[in-house]
Amino acid sequence: MAQQHLEPTGPLTGPVGTVTGDALAGYLRSQATEFLRALRQHRESGGAAGAEDPADAARALRRSVRRISASLHTFRPLLDTDWSESLRPELAWLSGTLGMEHAYESRLERLLLALHRLSGAVFPAQGVGPTPRPAQGAAPTTRPTPGADPGPAPAPAPDRGNLTVGAAKAGALLDRQLTLARTRAHSTALQALGSSRFHAVADTIALLASEVPLVKTAAGTDLHPLAAAAQERLEDAVTALPLVTAGHPYNAEALIHGLSPDPSPHPQDAPWHQVRLLLRLHRYAREVLSPAVDVRLLTAGQCLDRHRDASEAAAAAASAARTPRIAPATAYALGVLHADQRHEVEAARFAFQQCWLKEAVST
Amino acid sequence: MAQQHLEPTGPLTGPVGTVTGDALAGYLRSQATEFLRALRQHRESGGAAGAEDPADAARALRRSVRRISASLHTFRPLLDTDWSESLRPELAWLSGTLGMEHAYESRLERLLLALHRLSGAVFPAQGVGPTPRPAQGAAPTTRPTPGADPGPAPAPAPDRGNLTVGAAKAGALLDRQLTLARTRAHSTALQALGSSRFHAVADTIALLASEVPLVKTAAGTDLHPLAAAAQERLEDAVTALPLVTAGHPYNAEALIHGLSPDPSPHPQDAPWHQVRLLLRLHRYAREVLSPAVDVRLLTAGQCLDRHRDASEAAAAAASAARTPRIAPATAYALGVLHADQRHEVEAARFAFQQCWLKEAVST
Repeated sequence: MAQQHLEPTGPLTGPVGTVTGDALAGYLRSQATEFLRALRQHRESGGAAGAEDPADAARALRRSVRRISASLHTFRPLLDTDWSESLRPELAWLSGTLGMEHAYESRLERLLLALHRLSGAVFPAQGVGPTPRPAQGAAPTTRPTPGADPGPAPAPAPDRGNLTVGAAKAGALLDRQLTLARTRAHSTALQALGSSRFHAVADTIALLASEVPLVKTAAGTDLHPLAAAAQERLEDAVTALPLVTAGHPYNAEALIHGLSPDPSPHPQDAPWHQVRLLLRLHRYAREVLSPAVDVRLLTAGQCLDRHRDASEAAAAAASAARTPRIAPATAYALGVLHADQRHEVEAARFAFQQCWLKEAVST
Repeated sequence: MAQQHLEPTGPLTGPVGTVTGDALAGYLRSQATEFLRALRQHRESGGAAGAEDPADAARALRRSVRRISASLHTFRPLLDTDWSESLRPELAWLSGTLGMEHAYESRLERLLLALHRLSGAVFPAQGVGPTPRPAQGAAPTTRPTPGADPGPAPAPAPDRGNLTVGAAKAGALLDRQLTLARTRAHSTALQALGSSRFHAVADTIALLASEVPLVKTAAGTDLHPLAAAAQERLEDAVTALPLVTAGHPYNAEALIHGLSPDPSPHPQDAPWHQVRLLLRLHRYAREVLSPAVDVRLLTAGQCLDRHRDASEAAAAAASAARTPRIAPATAYALGVLHADQRHEVEAARFAFQQCWLKEAVST
């Protein structure tokens, strides 16, 4: 595969301070190169003892896929339409498929840590957590294949000594459900990485590492207006958020509907999730223009990641509580856990509001 | 009964700006008069349609009892020892006995309102709440006597239309348990008001309305050092509170031990409850010295009242969840409710910290 662009070229500034399509081409080539490097690392680490962590390689794969996908979106007018329109859904599929295993793993870890915190247990930083994560890319024979019997439930997480019966049972139930989901996601990701669909995407990205299909006018086009439009979309979405409420600590908004008859995800979370995606697009667009990292933008993004993680963890606790025939003590613990994570949602909104306010003042 | 001191005389200031035992005597006489007035009002309102609310009379009774009791404590060296030492436990008994019914009633109302909020139900300010409170002093034949069969469960609170099955069942369970407790407290209070023990206390307070048993040196003694000592006890206790943590919104401290194996009340709440009592003693001591109301002190006290109420409501939800044979959905709703009230505890600590900080700056 093409290796001639291992060194990112960095943003190219034109004679009048503009950044043109050449910078976009350089950025896309370097991200494509990162993708190919991560893919090689992932294949080499698969199952081999002492190799680099396949989770790191999977993370690097997702990282470059997100950035290529975002650039295709933000700088769409500068790229060959047919090419980008056919690649974008493939990147979305790949990003979604590769991210599920990690999502289930970190969700379980978050919920088990919360259960320990709620039990007043003092626990070490290490040694508490879900069943060890299967190495993505490990020999498939050690993992159940999709559709096959998932096998015996994994051993419950260690260090439950200080938990009440309800908390311990809730932890075991979540461990069972989320480990099963993670195992399935692992199999799905392995299947995806071996599919002809994936190989087609990888070939397209390998070509991108040497040749970016820009439109003819791209070399003379300033990227700033397109990047500014991404920033405007973000700012418009932030303006529509209930930031005044979020800035009042303990406003008790996030737990409204906590016992609502509607079992669907909280509709109040959706605008925040949308801002999270728009903020990422804005951040990646800035990367194309300049290598400088905006720490406050990173922090704001982390607040919204925390918001999303807590929102999904709360939903997982609520969903586990709908398991038939669970004990009342288990259900009670899951109720406490759900409310705890919804308050984490509220706390994340407060943290975002504080962070965003600072940003607005300093710019 | 003595009526000659209906008008409070107000604080008496000595020639060198001091406030002496005479002011204490005036304060105690006016509080005793208030007690007698409330007692008469309570007896007149008992059961008679169109009469004043017996709850108002009961509140006024408790109000004066708390103030007399606090003065006996803070200004102990100025009062006849045998007299005050024998009266104080009687006032504590009376205050505790008269306060229970109201405590159960407001606890149930708080929990049902929270259940509605958590269900995302839009509810009117009126019409939602526990079963109508029995009038204290209403004909005892309409209430079960202690030890007797509590009879059929009261009708569930109205307006449960928007609640999930779990929330509705949790509400009905809490209504049943707390209404039963309130009914028993009502009977106990009625019995207490008819007891010879109560008549002895009322006689003592009737005498206090005309004659305060001061020690001989009281007339020449400045009250300020004793009041200052009460303030110091408060300030020392506040200093020992974890106010730095409380000042960080969403510190997640209050729900630690939310699933602890220990079913006793949260030990972390005790220092806050203690500050609540010391703040009240300080506030009442100030009343003896000056009629000026310190609004910030009132607000701080309300924060600690809210802290106490939420703490006890959370415990009631946890206790209801230990009822045998409840459905998992009921237990889940009670878990959410418990966590919600523990976050109210945390919110109240934050509000107190903010209030106290303001006070420290302005003095």
